Amino acid sequence: MEASSTLEQEAQALKHLTEKRNRGAPKTKITFRKLDIGDFDRGYYELLANLTVTGDVTRERFEEQFNFISPATSHTYKIIVGIDDEKDKVVCNGTLILEKKFARNCATCGHIEDIVVHPDYGKQGIGGDLLTALSEMGKINNCYKLILDCAEKLEPFYGRQGYKYKGIQMAKI
Amino acid sequence: MEASSTLEQEAQALKHLTEKRNRGAPKTKITFRKLDIGDFDRGYYELLANLTVTGDVTRERFEEQFNFISPATSHTYKIIVGIDDEKDKVVCNGTLILEKKFARNCATCGHIEDIVVHPDYGKQGIGGDLLTALSEMGKINNCYKLILDCAEKLEPFYGRQGYKYKGIQMAKI
Repeated sequence: MEASSTLEQEAQALKHLTEKRNRGAPKTKITFRKLDIGDFDRGYYELLANLTVTGDVTRERFEEQFNFISPATSHTYKIIVGIDDEKDKVVCNGTLILEKKFARNCATCGHIEDIVVHPDYGKQGIGGDLLTALSEMGKINNCYKLILDCAEKLEPFYGRQGYKYKGIQMAKI
Repeated sequence: MEASSTLEQEAQALKHLTEKRNRGAPKTKITFRKLDIGDFDRGYYELLANLTVTGDVTRERFEEQFNFISPATSHTYKIIVGIDDEKDKVVCNGTLILEKKFARNCATCGHIEDIVVHPDYGKQGIGGDLLTALSEMGKINNCYKLILDCAEKLEPFYGRQGYKYKGIQMAKI
């Protein structure tokens, strides 16, 4: 379990980001926070289906995986969602995995995964705010860098968020 | 902590890979196993210095990070090293990070990190055997895929190990 001060800093950063976004009178008010077990009923899988294959996950299996990962207190998984409070729906997801290394003075590397914004909520800057939230989680946890893999066509989007091309991703199934 | 049956399967797989390699009367006999806290004294940082910046890590800091990661029993970190038994030196390292997802039927994705073979031990097939060991760890832990980031020039090497180009890696410092 993470030190409470780190968890408190994370909660504060998400609260500030939420307030900052909503002060701007956006088209949709969004609350950024960590994934909650109740998000299964807020359309979490309908959201993820816009990213990849989800499979037919039962509530029981979701809760089992949720309890294993423990997003509220995990020191490894920082899973950030955005909620459309009016509709009580999850409209975006982004995950930061904290990898502890032995190299670089035992540094922490942040891996960004599973970035998705529901297509009904596009063109509202939600993806950018989500990446800002993940960067804040990275800073609080002293990441020396954040890395992500994406399709070549997304290079301009992530470029605008401060990411630079580093190399290639390879996969084995 | 991981279920003992998984840990036993992992130990068996590493034992088999070690026996298979050494039966072939290689130039150097190598034992593949998980990282051990004693590897600090077997040149672990001298090895890592061939991969990246290591910093000046004291034994105390190494042990603190080792105890946090808990490579012997962690369900997230599978850190495999190869030992030159005759010289009692760590000659290669490869890390598999197991990421639990909610998508893809709550699948596990394996991230391969920190692959390095000491330059004195090149051209002996050690890198290939190390990747085989990590693939075995991935199979035992039901990974639906293994992914890694590398420089473009390494695409042929990983291609020979069954990896295919998937996209690009971007980083933010």
